[in-house]
Amino acid sequence: MIIDCHGHYTTAPRQLEEFRQRQLANDDQTGAPVPHPQISDAELCDSLERAQLRIQRERGIDLTIFSPRAVGMGHHLGDARTSAEWARVNNDLIHRICKLYPQNFAAVCQLPQSPGVAPAACIAELERCVEEFGFVGCNLNPDPSGGYWTDPPLHDRSWYPLFEKLIELDVPAMIHVSGSCNPHFHATGAHYINGDTTAFMQFLTSPLLRDLPEIRFIIPHGGGAAPYHWGRYRGIAQDLGLPPLPELLLRNVFFDTCVYHQAGIDLLLRVVPADNILFASETVGAVRGIDSETGYHFDDTRRYVEAAALSTETKAKIYSENALRVYPRLARQLALG
Amino acid sequence: MIIDCHGHYTTAPRQLEEFRQRQLANDDQTGAPVPHPQISDAELCDSLERAQLRIQRERGIDLTIFSPRAVGMGHHLGDARTSAEWARVNNDLIHRICKLYPQNFAAVCQLPQSPGVAPAACIAELERCVEEFGFVGCNLNPDPSGGYWTDPPLHDRSWYPLFEKLIELDVPAMIHVSGSCNPHFHATGAHYINGDTTAFMQFLTSPLLRDLPEIRFIIPHGGGAAPYHWGRYRGIAQDLGLPPLPELLLRNVFFDTCVYHQAGIDLLLRVVPADNILFASETVGAVRGIDSETGYHFDDTRRYVEAAALSTETKAKIYSENALRVYPRLARQLALG
Repeated sequence: MIIDCHGHYTTAPRQLEEFRQRQLANDDQTGAPVPHPQISDAELCDSLERAQLRIQRERGIDLTIFSPRAVGMGHHLGDARTSAEWARVNNDLIHRICKLYPQNFAAVCQLPQSPGVAPAACIAELERCVEEFGFVGCNLNPDPSGGYWTDPPLHDRSWYPLFEKLIELDVPAMIHVSGSCNPHFHATGAHYINGDTTAFMQFLTSPLLRDLPEIRFIIPHGGGAAPYHWGRYRGIAQDLGLPPLPELLLRNVFFDTCVYHQAGIDLLLRVVPADNILFASETVGAVRGIDSETGYHFDDTRRYVEAAALSTETKAKIYSENALRVYPRLARQLALG
Repeated sequence: MIIDCHGHYTTAPRQLEEFRQRQLANDDQTGAPVPHPQISDAELCDSLERAQLRIQRERGIDLTIFSPRAVGMGHHLGDARTSAEWARVNNDLIHRICKLYPQNFAAVCQLPQSPGVAPAACIAELERCVEEFGFVGCNLNPDPSGGYWTDPPLHDRSWYPLFEKLIELDVPAMIHVSGSCNPHFHATGAHYINGDTTAFMQFLTSPLLRDLPEIRFIIPHGGGAAPYHWGRYRGIAQDLGLPPLPELLLRNVFFDTCVYHQAGIDLLLRVVPADNILFASETVGAVRGIDSETGYHFDDTRRYVEAAALSTETKAKIYSENALRVYPRLARQLALG
């Protein structure tokens, strides 16, 4: 079985974006409430059949852990009410998709984060998604300010109630920034990767993982810069008098395989233990083209994993076993299904 | 010949830091001017003989391109006058060191950047260092705000006068952030690497390199996350309708080898053309310990390059030929010396 742990609904019908634009235009809430987007099941199916489902079939992916478009979360836009409504609209769509295609998709939710608002405000939507709908995880934005990094870091105590709820619900969080309103940061090229690297280093230097030993985080995009600079991070931890990285981080922190060339995947597989790597492609996502050097899509990450000539046991971990361990609610759903 | 293109004066006598603390305490300039630090030649020599020079001898490094301590630049502290004085004090020390050890060190200057101040204000100090003292390059901070990224990005027109002066003087700039006052970012673990990745992406997406085809930048720390995500960057450029990375970037952008493990160096050498890689170790710097897996210092990067089994021609490029091309003033000094 092959589980892709990182897919976004980037192909929604235009009504979704139209709603968002009207919602933001009505941000002072003085106008009439904007009606939620009307999207039929047929439209949902069409938007998926032509993209994610077609790609699943072509690449032999059995199931995608599926969440709303990350760059669209836009937590820095509007206020907490804006984000709450926008998260509900998107999570409802993901829920409908997972009911339409229970064999193909498992649901991960967007949180209604907003700058200056304590992360505990997200607990109600998380509970709704996990307990009412059966979602198996969430995406968590380490920078709801959208590139200015003005809210507290992940090790700030204000995050702990949300983290404790994740533990109670037995769901992991994928650390995933959204769009950037800072002209320094291209979203998918700089802000995403920086967000990953930043979170990794916050986990390394802070007591967070010691305080909450049952928490599980996935750092996407192959862990940002962390595997490439694994020696730097091992050395910084040692200089700080901290335990080795496996003891310090690797019981709680996992990396996906959204790295779009063979050399990068080979590095990831060489330095990070196989138990901490989850297959993913971020499809349809950051890079949509075909690599002229290989003739295949950049984001066809299964080809890189296959070419790495791993043992059957290692491949089984990366393709599904680790995901079922990190997302136990998914494992239970599949056992029941 | 082996040139290390990235060394900082991290071992200065305590008078330097004492001056800095008094300077910052007197930041409103109401007190008497703080006298500049008095450091004897013997103290300078001692601070180097026990550290950088010893390490050069142990590792067989012939010459280090040497600049003030990067995390100490602290452009976000004080105002433009503070930074101007602090840059002069540090650059004067680097100049003295390079006169004391002309065979061992070539000088690179700190710029007197300050948030909200146009980069053109740095031209006078750059000219003083290059024209009066014979410096061969500068360190350029893409985020003088110290982790909030609130000043204009590198492709903003306000940078162009400084860039044009770099071209006129025929010196390159190493892109190098300083310390972080943002609690999200550990300086050497997150802010440095994010700064590298951010600059790479700004070069990729903006017209800067097309506007100034003679400019040369070194992205340190192995290029941040760029080589690990080379496929992502190739794909993003292609999706944006831009030329391939060699044409788009590699006439102007170079990477150093400050990557502290074999797998990382192997990746760098695999994906980045040898013409764009400059040997460096960032010694004495971000990681000071010994890797228990190898028994050698993490920052002994020469061992990784040697172990990569490169051809004699490729090693010559990485060890010295590229540096002499990117820093032509160094080449002229060595030819004269």
